[in-house]
Amino acid sequence: MSSEFGNLLRVSVFGQSHGRAIGVVVDGLPAGEAVDREELQRFLDRRRPGGSPLSTARRETDVPEFLSGLEDGRTCGAPLCAVIQNADQHSKDYGGLQDKPRPGHADYTAWAKWGGQADMRGGGHFSGRLTAPLCVAGGIAKQILARRGVFVGAHLAAVAGIPDRPFPLRPTAALFEEIAARPFPVLDEAAGERMRSAILEAKNGLDSVGGVIECAATGLPAGLGEPMFGGVENRLAAALFGIPAVKGVEFGEGFRAAGLRGSENNDPFTVEDGQIRAESNRAGGILGGITTGMPLVLRAAVKPTPSIGRPQKTVRLSAMEDTDLTIHGRHDPCVAHRAVPVVEAVAAAVLLDMLLEGNHGTF
Amino acid sequence: MSSEFGNLLRVSVFGQSHGRAIGVVVDGLPAGEAVDREELQRFLDRRRPGGSPLSTARRETDVPEFLSGLEDGRTCGAPLCAVIQNADQHSKDYGGLQDKPRPGHADYTAWAKWGGQADMRGGGHFSGRLTAPLCVAGGIAKQILARRGVFVGAHLAAVAGIPDRPFPLRPTAALFEEIAARPFPVLDEAAGERMRSAILEAKNGLDSVGGVIECAATGLPAGLGEPMFGGVENRLAAALFGIPAVKGVEFGEGFRAAGLRGSENNDPFTVEDGQIRAESNRAGGILGGITTGMPLVLRAAVKPTPSIGRPQKTVRLSAMEDTDLTIHGRHDPCVAHRAVPVVEAVAAAVLLDMLLEGNHGTF
Amino acid sequence: MSSEFGNLLRVSVFGQSHGRAIGVVVDGLPAGEAVDREELQRFLDRRRPGGSPLSTARRETDVPEFLSGLEDGRTCGAPLCAVIQNADQHSKDYGGLQDKPRPGHADYTAWAKWGGQADMRGGGHFSGRLTAPLCVAGGIAKQILARRGVFVGAHLAAVAGIPDRPFPLRPTAALFEEIAARPFPVLDEAAGERMRSAILEAKNGLDSVGGVIECAATGLPAGLGEPMFGGVENRLAAALFGIPAVKGVEFGEGFRAAGLRGSENNDPFTVEDGQIRAESNRAGGILGGITTGMPLVLRAAVKPTPSIGRPQKTVRLSAMEDTDLTIHGRHDPCVAHRAVPVVEAVAAAVLLDMLLEGNHGTF
Amino acid sequence: MSSEFGNLLRVSVFGQSHGRAIGVVVDGLPAGEAVDREELQRFLDRRRPGGSPLSTARRETDVPEFLSGLEDGRTCGAPLCAVIQNADQHSKDYGGLQDKPRPGHADYTAWAKWGGQADMRGGGHFSGRLTAPLCVAGGIAKQILARRGVFVGAHLAAVAGIPDRPFPLRPTAALFEEIAARPFPVLDEAAGERMRSAILEAKNGLDSVGGVIECAATGLPAGLGEPMFGGVENRLAAALFGIPAVKGVEFGEGFRAAGLRGSENNDPFTVEDGQIRAESNRAGGILGGITTGMPLVLRAAVKPTPSIGRPQKTVRLSAMEDTDLTIHGRHDPCVAHRAVPVVEAVAAAVLLDMLLEGNHGTF
Repeated sequence: MSSEFGNLLRVSVFGQSHGRAIGVVVDGLPAGEAVDREELQRFLDRRRPGGSPLSTARRETDVPEFLSGLEDGRTCGAPLCAVIQNADQHSKDYGGLQDKPRPGHADYTAWAKWGGQADMRGGGHFSGRLTAPLCVAGGIAKQILARRGVFVGAHLAAVAGIPDRPFPLRPTAALFEEIAARPFPVLDEAAGERMRSAILEAKNGLDSVGGVIECAATGLPAGLGEPMFGGVENRLAAALFGIPAVKGVEFGEGFRAAGLRGSENNDPFTVEDGQIRAESNRAGGILGGITTGMPLVLRAAVKPTPSIGRPQKTVRLSAMEDTDLTIHGRHDPCVAHRAVPVVEAVAAAVLLDMLLEGNHGTF
Repeated sequence: MSSEFGNLLRVSVFGQSHGRAIGVVVDGLPAGEAVDREELQRFLDRRRPGGSPLSTARRETDVPEFLSGLEDGRTCGAPLCAVIQNADQHSKDYGGLQDKPRPGHADYTAWAKWGGQADMRGGGHFSGRLTAPLCVAGGIAKQILARRGVFVGAHLAAVAGIPDRPFPLRPTAALFEEIAARPFPVLDEAAGERMRSAILEAKNGLDSVGGVIECAATGLPAGLGEPMFGGVENRLAAALFGIPAVKGVEFGEGFRAAGLRGSENNDPFTVEDGQIRAESNRAGGILGGITTGMPLVLRAAVKPTPSIGRPQKTVRLSAMEDTDLTIHGRHDPCVAHRAVPVVEAVAAAVLLDMLLEGNHGTF
Repeated sequence: MSSEFGNLLRVSVFGQSHGRAIGVVVDGLPAGEAVDREELQRFLDRRRPGGSPLSTARRETDVPEFLSGLEDGRTCGAPLCAVIQNADQHSKDYGGLQDKPRPGHADYTAWAKWGGQADMRGGGHFSGRLTAPLCVAGGIAKQILARRGVFVGAHLAAVAGIPDRPFPLRPTAALFEEIAARPFPVLDEAAGERMRSAILEAKNGLDSVGGVIECAATGLPAGLGEPMFGGVENRLAAALFGIPAVKGVEFGEGFRAAGLRGSENNDPFTVEDGQIRAESNRAGGILGGITTGMPLVLRAAVKPTPSIGRPQKTVRLSAMEDTDLTIHGRHDPCVAHRAVPVVEAVAAAVLLDMLLEGNHGTF
Repeated sequence: MSSEFGNLLRVSVFGQSHGRAIGVVVDGLPAGEAVDREELQRFLDRRRPGGSPLSTARRETDVPEFLSGLEDGRTCGAPLCAVIQNADQHSKDYGGLQDKPRPGHADYTAWAKWGGQADMRGGGHFSGRLTAPLCVAGGIAKQILARRGVFVGAHLAAVAGIPDRPFPLRPTAALFEEIAARPFPVLDEAAGERMRSAILEAKNGLDSVGGVIECAATGLPAGLGEPMFGGVENRLAAALFGIPAVKGVEFGEGFRAAGLRGSENNDPFTVEDGQIRAESNRAGGILGGITTGMPLVLRAAVKPTPSIGRPQKTVRLSAMEDTDLTIHGRHDPCVAHRAVPVVEAVAAAVLLDMLLEGNHGTF
C-alpha cells in the first residue's frame, strides 16, 4: 500500500536516500515495448541536480541498471526492476539530526510512527531522491504513451509567487519537447529569469522557495476513467500526493473555479471537424471524473524545501525539550523545477495504467 | 474500482438520481458499534435541500433504511447496507437532455464512455444525490471516531470568492457542533450573510456560484499514514475527488505554501505539556504523508453548479451540430454549502479506514 | 475486503440469512448489456431449495429486485444493486444457539472475532443463503460471457464418495444446458440416482454428506491471466473459497497430478485445424497461471453440511463448560448439488473480470 | 497485480531465471524487527538444489543482498529490497526451445500472451527459481511471527503417491525445526526413503514425479480472517497458487471432507484448561474463513516437473506443425521437496499480512 501505486500497472519504489541503492519494480508493462535508454536518460537528467547554483551540490549520476523485465531492449512481460546506486552518500552531513527533527520534514512523523527504528539520515525513504526511480517508471510510460499518440508535458507554472504563462488551450508535443530541452522549464523565459533570481535570493538568505507545476496530457480518448472514486482525478491525485513536498492538486481551473460563476466556468461544447470539442477547457479535460478528449490539465503545489540553512526552533526528542537546529549540508533552495519531470512521470504512469485497463470497460 | 473506496473499510455507493433508490454498502465496520439513528439523521439533514431559497426546490426525505449489518442498533460485523428511496423523481424535467449534453456536466463524458446506454436523466449515477448514501457511511464513521476522541468538522471557507475565517489553530469538537447546528455552515456569520447574498444574486441571474470547504480532524494520533502513496493525503484526496464538483484538494497551506519561503512555511516544533506540538500548522497536520498529531486540515474546491438557467452553447449528438440549450427544472444555485457534511463524511470514512488498519503497522 | 471480490468488476455481497433482505452490488459491468430476467431466474432457481426431499424445507422465492444499474433491461454503466427479500424467516428455529456454537459452523469463530455482537441466528452473514445474490451477479456475468462465446457449466462430480463421469475433453454449451435443465446436475444419471439415495440415507440418519463440483469454461482465449499471483488459478481460488463449505480447490488433475509422472501429466501439444491444441487436458486449460485455450477445468470440494440432527458435543460459551447440542430446524442433508450453480456464478464473475482487464495487457 | 500479493504487507517478486538477478520488494514490514541473516540463509538453503541427486545439478548460491529496508540489521519501515544474483546461467541449455513450447510449461501460454516478446529461455519469470526471493520475504515473515509465538512448518505429505504420516493434532515448533533440519523433509523417515527411491527411479527413467506438501501454523489467535472473500483460506489459496507447479490447495480434510458425513467431519468443541478447543481438527483450524485457534492446516498439490528427458510431442510455432522435443539440461526429477520451505514462506507472509491488519477489525 505504501510505496506503490497502480492497478494493472504497479509501480513499487524502494530505497533510502543514503542507503546502498534505490530503485523501482514496474509490474504490468505491456510486452514488446522498446525502451529507448538514451531518451530515458535525458528524461532522468531533467530532475538531476546539475552543477547549477539553483540546486543541491550533490552529484547524482542516476543511471539505472535493469535487473529484469527487458530482453534485447524491449519489455518482456515480466516485472521490470531498475536499480540506481547511491554513489554520493554523505550521511555524516546528517549526523546529529536523529535527535532533533527538522521542521517541515518527515523526521518527526517517522519517529512517531517507527520510533528509534526510523532512518532519519537524509530523510531516508521520504527523500526527494526517491523520485529518481519514479522517473524511470514514468519515463518508460511516457515512451509507451507517445507511441500511441498520448503526450505528457509540464512546466513550472509559478515559483515564489512569480507566474509563468499557462499552457495554451491545445499544447502540442513539440511544445512539451521544447520546454523539456530548456535548462529551466518555463514557457515565458523572462518569467523564468525572475524565478531564478528569486531562487538565488532565497538561497543567499539561507532560505528556500516553493512553486506550482502545471502538467498536461494530450491525445487521450474521451471516456477514460470511472465514475466517483475511479475517476482520472482520483487516481492522479492519489499518486501525485506521493511526490514529496506536494501539498495541493487541482484540475482545470481548480481552486479558481470556486470563485467563478457557472456561466463562466462551464465549457461550451462545439462541433469542430466532425468532432465534439469544448471552446474553453476550464474543466481540465475532465467531467465527472471522465476524460472529455480535451487536453487533461492539472497543477500540483510544491512547498518550499524544508531544509534551510537558517537556525530553526525544534525539540530534542531524547530530552523532550525545546532546542535550536541549524541544518548544514547541501540543499536545494527550490525543488519545484526539479519536480517538473517527476509530475510528468507520475501522471504518465497513472494514465498508462488507466489506458491498460483497456477498452474502457468492454472487451 | 469505480464507485467504491477504502481498504479495510470499503464504502460502495450505488443508485441513480432518478432511479428507484440509492444506497451504500459499508463493509468492514468494527462490530458492536452503536449507530445513533437520530444523530445520523441530523447529519444527513445538513446536506438535504431544505425549503431554503439557496438550494433546489426538490424535496428529498433521505431517510435510510438498513437492510443488513445492524442488530439491535449495533453493527454486527456483516456488511451494512442502507437504502434511500427516490421519492421525488421528476425525470421529465430532464426530457430532451439525452441528445444535448449539458456543459460542465458528465453527460457528454458518460455518452463518450457508454454511448446510448448511459443514463443521462438527472445526471444518473453522477448526481450530487449520490452524496446522501456517502453521508450515511460517513455519518456512522463520525460516530465511531467521536467515541475514540477523533472529531471531524468542516465549514464553508469561501463562496463566490467571499472568504470565511479559517479554523483556529486548535478547533474543538464544540466548535464543529456549533457550525453544524447553524443553517449556514460558517465561522463568521457576517461573511455567511454576504455569501448568501451572492448565492441569491447568482440565482436571480439564472447563474450559479462555487465555493471552498475547509475540513479539520482533531484527536488523530501522530504516526498515522504510510510513506509515499499510502499517505493520509493520498487517500483523502483519492476519495474527496469522488464528490461531484470537487476540482481541487489541498492540505495545510496547500497552494499558498507554493508562494511562501521555507522559513515561513516550516512549523517550529515545541514541547508543550510534555508533548511535541507545532507552533503553527501550515503542514495541516501532515508531514511526509503521516500525521503529526496536530489537527489535520484540508480544503476542497467546489466548482459552480453546472446546471444554470441561462441559455448555453452545446451540441446535438444525433446530428453532430452546434445548438443551444436552456436547462429548466429545479437546480441549486450553489452546492458548496450542502457539500460541507459530504466532505466531513468522506474524510471520516477515510480516517476510520486508516485507523482500522490498526496498530500503525505492527501487531 | 471481506464480502467482495474482483478488480475491474467488483461483486459486493451483503445481508444476513435472517435479516430483512440480502443483496449484491456489482460495479464495473460493461454498459449496454441486456439482462434476460427470465434466464436469470431459471439460473437462480437451480440453487433454490425446491420441494425436493434432498434439500431444506425452507421456501425461498429468490426473486431479485433491481434498485440500480439497469435502464430498459440493459446495464447502464452505474453499479447494479439487486435485493432479495428474506420472506421465510424462522429465526426462532435458531433460538438458544447463541450460547452453544454449532460444530463445523462459523458460530464460534464469529463469536471469537466479534464477541456478543456477532449475529449467530441462522449463521448470519455466513449462511449459504448469501449465495443467492452471488448467483445474481454470476448469472448476469454468464449471460455477458455467453454473448462472446464463453460458456461456463458445472456438474456434481461426486457426492458421498460416489463419482459422476468427468466432463469430456471438450464439453459444449449444449452439454452445460442439458445438465442445468436436469433436476439433479450430473452427467451419469445412474450415478446421480445413487448420490440421491446416499443423501436421503444420510438425512434419515439425521446426518449429512458432502460432494465435489466440477466446473468448466469453454471459449476462453489463450493468454488470459498474469504470471505468479495474478493467474487464473489464484483469482478463481480466492473467490471460490468464499462459497460457504468449500474446503478445497484444484485445477485440471489437481491433487491427482501429484501422484502422476511428468510423462503422464504433461499434455502434448498438437496442431489441429491450424490451431494449437493439447491432446489431453490434465492442466485444466492453465499453464503458468495463464489459459491455454483448452477448456478451463476446476473442482471444488464441499464439506458435508455441518447442521445435522444428531446430538453433538459443544460448549456453553457463557459458562465455559462442555455441553450437548441438538440442532432442530430445516436443514439441507447436502448442499453440494445446490452449490453447482454457485460455483458457475463465481467462476463466471471472475472470468468476466479478467476478460474486462482487457486486451491482455495491451491497448 | 501479477507478481505481487498482500494487502498491508506487499510482496513483489521480480526477475527471470536466466537474467542478471532476481529479487523481491517487501513493503509494509513492521519497523524495528531484527532479521537474523544466518537463520534466513539456513531457511533459503532448504530450497536450494544441493549436490543431491534428487535435484538439479545447477548450483545456486542464493545469498540475498539487501539494497534497502534494513538499518543495523533491523527493518526500518521503508520497503525492503533483496536481490539475488544469477550466477550460474546456462541459457544455452535452453537454445532452440523458443520455437518449441515444452509440454506442461508456460512456454506456450507466455507465447500466446506476449508473442515473440516472451522470454522463454529457462521459463523466464515463470521459473521455480523465482521462489528464492519468495523465501527471502517469507523467511523474514517467519522470524517476525515466531517472535510473537506463531510458528509455521511444513513437510512432504506425499511423493509419487507414497504418503508421509500427517502432522499430529498439535504440531509443535520443535517438530517444525526437526523436520527443517532433515535433508528430506518428512515425519516418517522410512516413508521418506521410499519417496527418494521413487524420485531416483523416475530420474533414471528420464521422468519426474509430483508430491503434496502439508503446512501448519500454530499460535494464531481465534478470530483471524474476514467473512466470505477475505477469509484465511481465500488469501492463502490466492498466494499459494502463485508457487509454480501448484495445482490444488485444500484446508483441513479438504477433498476428503467431501466424502465424509457431517457427523464425522464436524469437530466437537470442548473446554480445555479454560480455553475452547476442538477435539479433532478436520476444519484445519478454519471455520467460515476465520481461524478457530486450532492449528491451521493446509495442503498444496505439486505436479510432476514438466521438464523431463524423454522425447515429447509438441509443435513448432513458426511452422505451425507437429514435432518432437527432447529437453536437455539439468532438471529436477521432483520439485515437491524443494517447495516445502516455499509453501512455508508464502503461508507465513500471508499470515503476517493478516495479523498486521491488526486488531481484527477494531481499533
